[in-house]
Amino acid sequence: MKIIIALGGNALEDKDSDSTAESQLKIIKNTMKCLVDVIAAGYDVVITHGNGPQIGRIIIQNEVAKEITPAMPFDVCGAMSQGMIGYHIQQALGDELKKRGIDKPVATVITQVVVDKEDPGFNKPTKPIGPFYSKDEANKLIEEKGYKMIEDSGRGYRRVVASPEPKRIVEIETIKTLINNNNIVITVGGGGIPVIEEKDGLKGVEAVIDKDLASEKLAEDVAADIFLILTAVDKVYLDYVKANRRGLHYVETSDMKQYIKGGHFAPGSMLPKVLAATKFVESKPGRKAIITSIDKAKDALCGLCGTIIE
Amino acid sequence: MKIIIALGGNALEDKDSDSTAESQLKIIKNTMKCLVDVIAAGYDVVITHGNGPQIGRIIIQNEVAKEITPAMPFDVCGAMSQGMIGYHIQQALGDELKKRGIDKPVATVITQVVVDKEDPGFNKPTKPIGPFYSKDEANKLIEEKGYKMIEDSGRGYRRVVASPEPKRIVEIETIKTLINNNNIVITVGGGGIPVIEEKDGLKGVEAVIDKDLASEKLAEDVAADIFLILTAVDKVYLDYVKANRRGLHYVETSDMKQYIKGGHFAPGSMLPKVLAATKFVESKPGRKAIITSIDKAKDALCGLCGTIIE
Repeated sequence: MKIIIALGGNALEDKDSDSTAESQLKIIKNTMKCLVDVIAAGYDVVITHGNGPQIGRIIIQNEVAKEITPAMPFDVCGAMSQGMIGYHIQQALGDELKKRGIDKPVATVITQVVVDKEDPGFNKPTKPIGPFYSKDEANKLIEEKGYKMIEDSGRGYRRVVASPEPKRIVEIETIKTLINNNNIVITVGGGGIPVIEEKDGLKGVEAVIDKDLASEKLAEDVAADIFLILTAVDKVYLDYVKANRRGLHYVETSDMKQYIKGGHFAPGSMLPKVLAATKFVESKPGRKAIITSIDKAKDALCGLCGTIIE
Repeated sequence: MKIIIALGGNALEDKDSDSTAESQLKIIKNTMKCLVDVIAAGYDVVITHGNGPQIGRIIIQNEVAKEITPAMPFDVCGAMSQGMIGYHIQQALGDELKKRGIDKPVATVITQVVVDKEDPGFNKPTKPIGPFYSKDEANKLIEEKGYKMIEDSGRGYRRVVASPEPKRIVEIETIKTLINNNNIVITVGGGGIPVIEEKDGLKGVEAVIDKDLASEKLAEDVAADIFLILTAVDKVYLDYVKANRRGLHYVETSDMKQYIKGGHFAPGSMLPKVLAATKFVESKPGRKAIITSIDKAKDALCGLCGTIIE
């Protein structure tokens, strides 16, 4: 059974942590213990992950030091975050596999994902990235660099970029080769490095591809059996913020689509996960998607908990 | 014929450039044109590269922003530089291959290299990294962090770290799988992310593994036929800085060892290349090493120029 496991932000760092390398690595080591339970159960695993807070900090470092050394554009910062997070995952996972006597190579593949340069997302950027600015700073950036800025959560102004749909995973042949040869691959980190196709080749763009949608694309491309989305909650809830919230265990896609229409899921939070999961299940008969928390991954695969979409 | 191509700093950026992403990518695109000449000639190519200036700038960004967001340690900065440089190489190489109608997947593998924690290098660090400091700043760092600092080229004080010998490439099985399946792999960037083996697993350390030595290790591990080191000069010279300098074309290892003893090659410059090349040629009969410049790569492989060690 081939399974794509998409790791959310909480699998990579603690919300209240100090963001040092040590504290990130500690959380990742815990996450990997749960993942090795899945691997030990016989699943062929491919790992994807988010990069929101990490690329945010890289952008801040680039901004703050820009008078001394040129700030790298967003695509390059994405590549850096894939290297950083992938390194920690492959080291922690390799160690844990070795402890349990499982002989499987692990590797991070730097991954580009093609988006359509005509994607409607480019006309209405919505995804906040990088540091917070004052109103004056924000206005300066709008004027000087043409950035689109929004007021974010009362904490100041942030740049927003497009969140285009993933169209093609450039390194897909490499990923397939590794999966077919017993490797555990870490790929499409942060949704992939967004690139567009120009006449003379690929070109990095300033955009954020939703990591769940990119992982869904990957799951279809490698003909996965299961798409497992690991997040901060143990299952998907209806009326999550209300007193009468109900957790979903087994759900059919037709019902899930009704819940989506009913506005049960928050955009930028559970909505993209539910959409990606439903898309995968509908892509071919027999495919299954699961949304649960990291510690429940193995039990959810046994059908004992989590939200299972069939 | 399997060939390891080690790219020096000048293959990745112009010495006089402004270090922006655009100018780095421009140089890399030119380098890839020469590499595709080699690939088109039928060689199976594996690419390695240095990361000195790039990781230096990442360290500076981390240092400058450290009051706002924690500075990452040296191993994590190395992983970030592999992601950044690998991304540019794989994009530029993929584009150039497509233009020439060559169907080969290209991918960067984030690569850890194990060093011995008892390596004598750890007792006498010699490799300068990161920014220049004033004498007062240097003394503060020595006291507070236990850094070893040296006065470097009259431009100020720099931190020095160990340059231990590469012992084992952690991701070697992944790399072999990709080579055996028609992939062009970009690996051991910057000599690899240096890690030591501890009781509970791998641990990143603050060190720089010489990229030519790490590439040589890789060349032996994958049973390469040729080890091609691309640098800023067209060949190796005796008495390089004197009026009577003589370029070397065909050289036997026994002669090269005499020249090494004779002090013809500068430490930190040509010496590590000549040592790595000689080591590879002596590792098994029939193996060949070549040291030349990027634009002469293809002709040197035909025996027309460069320094060829047999």
